[in-house]
Amino acid sequence: MIERLCIIGVGLIGGSLARALREAAYVKEIVGSSRSAENLQRAVDLGVIDRYDTAPSRAVEGADLVFVSVPLGAMATVFASIKDALAEGAVVTDGGSAKASVVEDVKKAVGRLPAWFVAGHPIAGTEQSGVEASFPDLYKGRRVILTPSVETDVEAVKKVRAMWEAAGASVNEMDVAHHDEVLAATSHLPHMLAFALVESLARMSEQREIFEYAAGGFRDFTRIASSDPVMWRDICLANRDALLVMVERFKNDLDDLTAAIRIQDAHKVLEIFQDAKAARDAFAG
Amino acid sequence: MIERLCIIGVGLIGGSLARALREAAYVKEIVGSSRSAENLQRAVDLGVIDRYDTAPSRAVEGADLVFVSVPLGAMATVFASIKDALAEGAVVTDGGSAKASVVEDVKKAVGRLPAWFVAGHPIAGTEQSGVEASFPDLYKGRRVILTPSVETDVEAVKKVRAMWEAAGASVNEMDVAHHDEVLAATSHLPHMLAFALVESLARMSEQREIFEYAAGGFRDFTRIASSDPVMWRDICLANRDALLVMVERFKNDLDDLTAAIRIQDAHKVLEIFQDAKAARDAFAG
Repeated sequence: MIERLCIIGVGLIGGSLARALREAAYVKEIVGSSRSAENLQRAVDLGVIDRYDTAPSRAVEGADLVFVSVPLGAMATVFASIKDALAEGAVVTDGGSAKASVVEDVKKAVGRLPAWFVAGHPIAGTEQSGVEASFPDLYKGRRVILTPSVETDVEAVKKVRAMWEAAGASVNEMDVAHHDEVLAATSHLPHMLAFALVESLARMSEQREIFEYAAGGFRDFTRIASSDPVMWRDICLANRDALLVMVERFKNDLDDLTAAIRIQDAHKVLEIFQDAKAARDAFAG
Repeated sequence: MIERLCIIGVGLIGGSLARALREAAYVKEIVGSSRSAENLQRAVDLGVIDRYDTAPSRAVEGADLVFVSVPLGAMATVFASIKDALAEGAVVTDGGSAKASVVEDVKKAVGRLPAWFVAGHPIAGTEQSGVEASFPDLYKGRRVILTPSVETDVEAVKKVRAMWEAAGASVNEMDVAHHDEVLAATSHLPHMLAFALVESLARMSEQREIFEYAAGGFRDFTRIASSDPVMWRDICLANRDALLVMVERFKNDLDDLTAAIRIQDAHKVLEIFQDAKAARDAFAG
């Protein structure tokens, strides 16, 4: 049970957590904070938060749990402003899609990695953003990865785990570098490819006609290119190292496939497609 | 109205056309043909076709309209076997996803491009295949592109257009090369990327874990990698020239994006993502 939850960044991710915990009656009071008072007032009107303060340092006062769900580029500023305002025993966690960069930001802001910080990442979201898009079931049946370090207080990890489980998620732990590699592969690279493909087609002279003939498969394939550009810029820059490794791996495989098509190696092309289909069918059930 | 329709290749595409025309009461009799008698018997059992002959040359006898919906790699063989068996005045069309290669196959089989052949391509499909996956609404509200040549009989084009309209599709005409370029961009390249990405991840040592954490966006993004590998091998090889041009274009754009991430050019990365999102949102409505 959480007495007072403070959510910094009340958008799809933060707003959905608030709604889920409220629905589960797992929280008594929710205080919001973000740069926009207008957005925070909307969150109050929607019943997502109880009250707000645009200053994170005031919003965290007396909170026993703080969830930071701002774009990765804003993490450092938030941690610098809250570190001295936290209540005794308060636990802080975050929802950033890359973890090494957040851990680095916290270290810099605090001077060391504090025991009260539990790095986390809910693997959930839609291509929508903003508190209006938030809904209580976003985390139901989804996974949350926590990446605690040796410095992290075990009780703090338990508290964050319990919060996510109350929201309907299942929680796993892994180390920071491994998280960043797995997410680069399954999320960050696909987003890069979708953005790059749509941009590529948009710059062709027959742009309008091209998109006119784009059918169902293309729509699914490029849906993630409708995601928030600022958020994804931050993610790609924050997880740059792991992402660049994955991009190189993918480019090599794409080059192999392209070469097989160029020399009309029908056997090789079929083999690649069959392997991919088998893997896709196996994991998608 | 079609008196006797012959469908060569009774899978998702051919089967769905049969079901749609039957539902529209636009056809009196449907004769099927394919290499598998078992598959054809299933199509009869499902009420998709009335009768069948595994020999295309016998199946086309007396048909006023013939629809060839076999994989691109099998087109040449089919046209060679039916060309002398067609009824007087019969019109033949196809459903191949690349058009230059089919036109070339027909030319070779017949010795010239015959007036009775209307190259066509319904922009519809799912990642499923086989007659069991066929359904009458597959073409409703979808586009069909016809790519007639100067040799093509205008009345034959009208007949094929009327058939697709009866199935619920809207029909456009364009030249062969332009079709192949548009489809390389909107369909063939995305499939290549999806197959290459899934193959790339499947070969990583943490394969199982990678796919375990793959969330909604990734599932949508890679759904097309569940498509029929043989069909897609044929398409990539048949539309090789247009596809390789598109791949190069895409690789250049991906390289630009990768470089911007590498040098942490936040402005450039954001610009690319914003342009892509704007284009995606504009066409997807």
